Amino acid sequence: MIEKTLTLEDLEENLTQLLANIHGLDQDAMERVQIRLDALTKPQGSLGQLEVIAKQLGGIQGTAKPQVRGKAVLLMAGDHGVMEEGVSAFPQEVTPQMVYNFLRGGAAINVLSRQADAEVICTDVGVAFPLEPEELMRKRVRNGTANMAKGPAMTRKEALQALLTGAEVAQGAIERGINVLATGDMGIGNTTPSSAIVAVFTGQDIAEVVGRGTGINDRTLAHKRAVIEKALAINGPNPDDPLDVLTKVGGLEIAAIAGSILQAAASRTAVVIDGFISTASAIIAAKLSPTSVHYMIPSHGSVEPGHRSALRLLGLEPMLNLNMRLGEGTGAVLSFYLIEAATRILKEMATFADAGVSEGR
Amino acid sequence: MIEKTLTLEDLEENLTQLLANIHGLDQDAMERVQIRLDALTKPQGSLGQLEVIAKQLGGIQGTAKPQVRGKAVLLMAGDHGVMEEGVSAFPQEVTPQMVYNFLRGGAAINVLSRQADAEVICTDVGVAFPLEPEELMRKRVRNGTANMAKGPAMTRKEALQALLTGAEVAQGAIERGINVLATGDMGIGNTTPSSAIVAVFTGQDIAEVVGRGTGINDRTLAHKRAVIEKALAINGPNPDDPLDVLTKVGGLEIAAIAGSILQAAASRTAVVIDGFISTASAIIAAKLSPTSVHYMIPSHGSVEPGHRSALRLLGLEPMLNLNMRLGEGTGAVLSFYLIEAATRILKEMATFADAGVSEGR
Repeated sequence: MIEKTLTLEDLEENLTQLLANIHGLDQDAMERVQIRLDALTKPQGSLGQLEVIAKQLGGIQGTAKPQVRGKAVLLMAGDHGVMEEGVSAFPQEVTPQMVYNFLRGGAAINVLSRQADAEVICTDVGVAFPLEPEELMRKRVRNGTANMAKGPAMTRKEALQALLTGAEVAQGAIERGINVLATGDMGIGNTTPSSAIVAVFTGQDIAEVVGRGTGINDRTLAHKRAVIEKALAINGPNPDDPLDVLTKVGGLEIAAIAGSILQAAASRTAVVIDGFISTASAIIAAKLSPTSVHYMIPSHGSVEPGHRSALRLLGLEPMLNLNMRLGEGTGAVLSFYLIEAATRILKEMATFADAGVSEGR
Repeated sequence: MIEKTLTLEDLEENLTQLLANIHGLDQDAMERVQIRLDALTKPQGSLGQLEVIAKQLGGIQGTAKPQVRGKAVLLMAGDHGVMEEGVSAFPQEVTPQMVYNFLRGGAAINVLSRQADAEVICTDVGVAFPLEPEELMRKRVRNGTANMAKGPAMTRKEALQALLTGAEVAQGAIERGINVLATGDMGIGNTTPSSAIVAVFTGQDIAEVVGRGTGINDRTLAHKRAVIEKALAINGPNPDDPLDVLTKVGGLEIAAIAGSILQAAASRTAVVIDGFISTASAIIAAKLSPTSVHYMIPSHGSVEPGHRSALRLLGLEPMLNLNMRLGEGTGAVLSFYLIEAATRILKEMATFADAGVSEGR
């Protein structure tokens, strides 16, 4: 657990160390995977993204025989002060209500994780309501962010605490044998800070980036845009300092997701990026460590209008187009199946030589 | 097995009966699924295509609690006389070689079907080479099609035989308890007839529709386009008579896939449409019975340039974007997972009332 007694300097130093541990993929392993893929009974490259993932996973794990040994979704929960501006169709109480739903196994992410044989690891990094038992709140950095339309969402120290908490949770899962992670989020109102982050880094107009989240009407959508414009104008986040952006217009769960991605990269572990909120977090991670992108696997393309441009900024293309807009890690967990398909193709398919099949010209 | 002694009139009558058995979806079941979906702890519609599939499956199976009980891919193999024009990167011998690979379990479709817990049912409807044991050839209508660049690919009677053979294979699987089918194809050269079919029905230029198949170079691509132009000019297939198009510029496996789709619809069974060849077959099915489209579930968007427009013609949108171009049913079998996700969401998620979660505005 990230000690609350650590100073800002200690936390900055911890982040610097985390970033220093992120290295590139194993090129030799990737070449060996490619040779194997090209020997299998199919036209070269005809399995498209499955082949790309097989190769990437080989490079991540440093082996020509990558495996999925254990899967988990790291579901980070946090609340947003900007909710007092009225930016969501749901009341803020839904954040803790959904945390209980996750713990009881009744949410979409639970259902899809059971199907995927994946663990759901839910962490409260900043819910604004009490949670019983109190143990549930033990990683909470603060009770929700402040209203970013009036000032910074949090302090730089809190942003670092939340980010390093995410890293710590990821490390714990990896130490227990999980080697493919998915990102997930819960936080009523969190498309608002995510839109702000995406707008800052893509340089797009707010109108192009901001969407309906859980389903707001036209009037609330116009208001949400105005609130984000105001938050950006008041805070003036510095795009050359990703932590500054996270601090001023981010969220606690967004920080934790970014940290979990960075830890995955530092631990040579694949991490599947969920929808809009996770992709905003992934941009923070990528700005802190461009190399971390090599450990990211895209999942679905969400309905949120800013999601595609956010993915493009990372050089990622969605594999699933399901018009989903739920978050929780649902799109990422659905993609575990495709990653396992990639490893099975590599392991189980016959070669041209084995099967006596003639090769193409 | 479709008796070879049947006359053309008998076969036309059998098709008419098959088409007469295709009815619309159960609207009442679909409404009940929708009510359930809207009570679950998620913003309404936020699971996008998974919700659409849950509802469609309810309508297909006539129940508010649709299930996936058994899965199979119907892999239809056939050869193409147009191969003598030199339209593929692979030699024609690869068709029977791959049939043996399917039977031994070494092909991509075998690997993905094992992962999906789905059966692979491979049928020779028109391979041009002997297959041992001879039993393997027992549903063969003829030894490959004739060269469509010189005249009709087959006779109307053969097209009907192949189509009804596909229907028969589907019926056999359904009788054994399979209730979700996938279409699959094997036939070196079969993007050529498929492109011709798509061009006829979409009215697009050949240049927009025709692609590289298994991976031909620019020169062969230009030649392939010219061959298809020639086949269409010589045969003049009538778009108002789908069987005429199938007969003149189709393929035996394409006919069989169309038949399997029609039988699925007649037996109220969901059928997942694979890539370009399967979609060309699905267009034939849809032209014979527009209602059959309601039983089709899309899977992936292939690299073949004509695939998107072919899917649009059917009103289908791909769920998976993996840049695949292999056929065999690989994209369809990967999509079984998404269909099962849809049924699990419906069955396992908590409602707002159960979970004590506040609803949105």
